[in-house]
Amino acid sequence: MNRRRRIYEGKAKILFEGPEPGTLVQFFKDDATAFNKKKQEVVDGKGVLNNRISEHIFNHLNRMGIPTHFIRRLNMREQLIREVEIIPLEIVIRNVAAGSLSKRLGIEEGTALPRSIIEFYYKNDELEDPMVTEEHITAFGWATPQEIDDIMALAIRVNDFLAGLFLGAGIQLVDFKMECGRLWENDMMRIVVADEISPDSCRLWDVQTKDKLDKDRFRRDMGGLVEAYTEVARRLGILVEQERPKGGGPVLVQ
Amino acid sequence: MNRRRRIYEGKAKILFEGPEPGTLVQFFKDDATAFNKKKQEVVDGKGVLNNRISEHIFNHLNRMGIPTHFIRRLNMREQLIREVEIIPLEIVIRNVAAGSLSKRLGIEEGTALPRSIIEFYYKNDELEDPMVTEEHITAFGWATPQEIDDIMALAIRVNDFLAGLFLGAGIQLVDFKMECGRLWENDMMRIVVADEISPDSCRLWDVQTKDKLDKDRFRRDMGGLVEAYTEVARRLGILVEQERPKGGGPVLVQ
Repeated sequence: MNRRRRIYEGKAKILFEGPEPGTLVQFFKDDATAFNKKKQEVVDGKGVLNNRISEHIFNHLNRMGIPTHFIRRLNMREQLIREVEIIPLEIVIRNVAAGSLSKRLGIEEGTALPRSIIEFYYKNDELEDPMVTEEHITAFGWATPQEIDDIMALAIRVNDFLAGLFLGAGIQLVDFKMECGRLWENDMMRIVVADEISPDSCRLWDVQTKDKLDKDRFRRDMGGLVEAYTEVARRLGILVEQERPKGGGPVLVQ
Repeated sequence: MNRRRRIYEGKAKILFEGPEPGTLVQFFKDDATAFNKKKQEVVDGKGVLNNRISEHIFNHLNRMGIPTHFIRRLNMREQLIREVEIIPLEIVIRNVAAGSLSKRLGIEEGTALPRSIIEFYYKNDELEDPMVTEEHITAFGWATPQEIDDIMALAIRVNDFLAGLFLGAGIQLVDFKMECGRLWENDMMRIVVADEISPDSCRLWDVQTKDKLDKDRFRRDMGGLVEAYTEVARRLGILVEQERPKGGGPVLVQ
C-alpha cells in the first residue's frame, strides 16, 4: 500500500493513485485543523468516523441522482473515488447564521436565515480562503457562469437532502461546505460533488439541546469531538449498539 | 442656512432638506477619513474640489442618459439633488487590481484584471462594510434580483464612461465606488446613481507616471492630497489657469 503513488495530501485527507485509470483512493487522516492550520491536533478515530459518515451521505446522494465522485468505501480509512478536476472553490450553504457569517454581518448565531444562502470561498491556504463572488470566479476563470449555475443547483439539492437526513436524526443542519469537480465521461463533462461531507465540513446542532455535534467543538476547544462524531454516526444508523467487543467502544457495522 | 433641517451627516458630506419636496442639498465637507474613520483629518479645500469634480461627472452622466440623483450645483460646497432611497451597498467597479482586491486575492497592485469586476459591500460602519454577494443582498432584502441587475448595468455604463473620460485626461481609472438609490417619479421607481463620484471614491493613476491622484495619498500618508485633486480637476477642464487672484491658488471656473 505504501508503494501507491501519492497524488495530493491535504489537511485531513490523502489522495492516492487508484487501481484503475480515472480512479483515486481517498484516505481519511485523524488530523484536525482549524483557522487555516493555526490550530491542529491528531484526534484518534476521527478519520474512521468521517470515512463512514461521508460514505453514508455520498451513497445516498448517488442514489438520489445527485452526481458525486464517490464509488465505494474500501476499508476503515479509504474510499474509492472517481478522479475529477477539482474546482478551486469551497461552496458553503447556510440555513442558520453561525461562524463567519454571524461575525461579518452582525447576525446572532442561531438566527434562522430568511432563506438558504450560498457562498463561495477561493480555496487558497496562503490567502486564507477569501470569500469571492461570481464576478471574481468568472473573471479569473475558476469556473464558467454555466458551471456556477450547475454548482448552485447541486448545492441546493444537497442542502435539501442533507437537511432532511439530519432532521430525521434530530440534528439541525446549520451550514455545510462542499466541493465540486469536473468529471469527464465519454467526452462529456459534468459537475459532481467531490471531497467529503462529514461533521468536519458541516455545522450540526442537536435539535433539542442545540449541542454542537461538529468541528466547532474542536475550533472552540469544547472537547468531546470523537464522541460527537460518534453520536452523529449512531443517529444516522451507521453505528449500532451491539455487544461490545473486548476493549469497548462503538461497533462499526460493515 | 443654518436653520435648514439636517437629514443625515456622513463622513464627508451632510444632507439638508432641499428647497422643494423631493429635493435635498448635499454639502461637501473637508473631512477626510479612511479605514472606517480610524484615520481622519480636515483637508482644506477638498470639499470644494469634490463638489466640482462630482458635478462635472454627474452632469455628463445625466447627458448620456445614465440616470443620477444630481440636479445642479448650488455653490462652492453644495449641490441640489433628488431625494432617493439609498440602497445600503457600496458598488465597487475594478479595472486594475489594487487595494483590498490585491490583498485578498494575492494579485499585485497594477495588474490589469481579465475583465472589469463588480463588487458589493454592505454599507455598515460598525461591521466595517463587509463584502457581500447577490446571495446576501437578496436573502436579506437589501435589493431585489431585478434591482441588482439594474445596478450592475448602471455600473458597467458608468465605468465605460468614466474610464474614457479619465483616459482622455491622461488618467487611468483603476477602480471606483458608487452608490445607487431608488427614485420614485409618477408612481414609477427606477434605480439612479447617487452620492458622489470624485477622487475620494476613485483610484486614479497618472497614465505615464502611475502617480496616485486620489484618496490613497491620504490612506497611505503620501501627502499632496489637495494638489492631486486639483490636478484631476485641471485635467478635466474644470480648473483653468487664469490670472491668479491675490493670494494665489487655482481659479475655479464658474
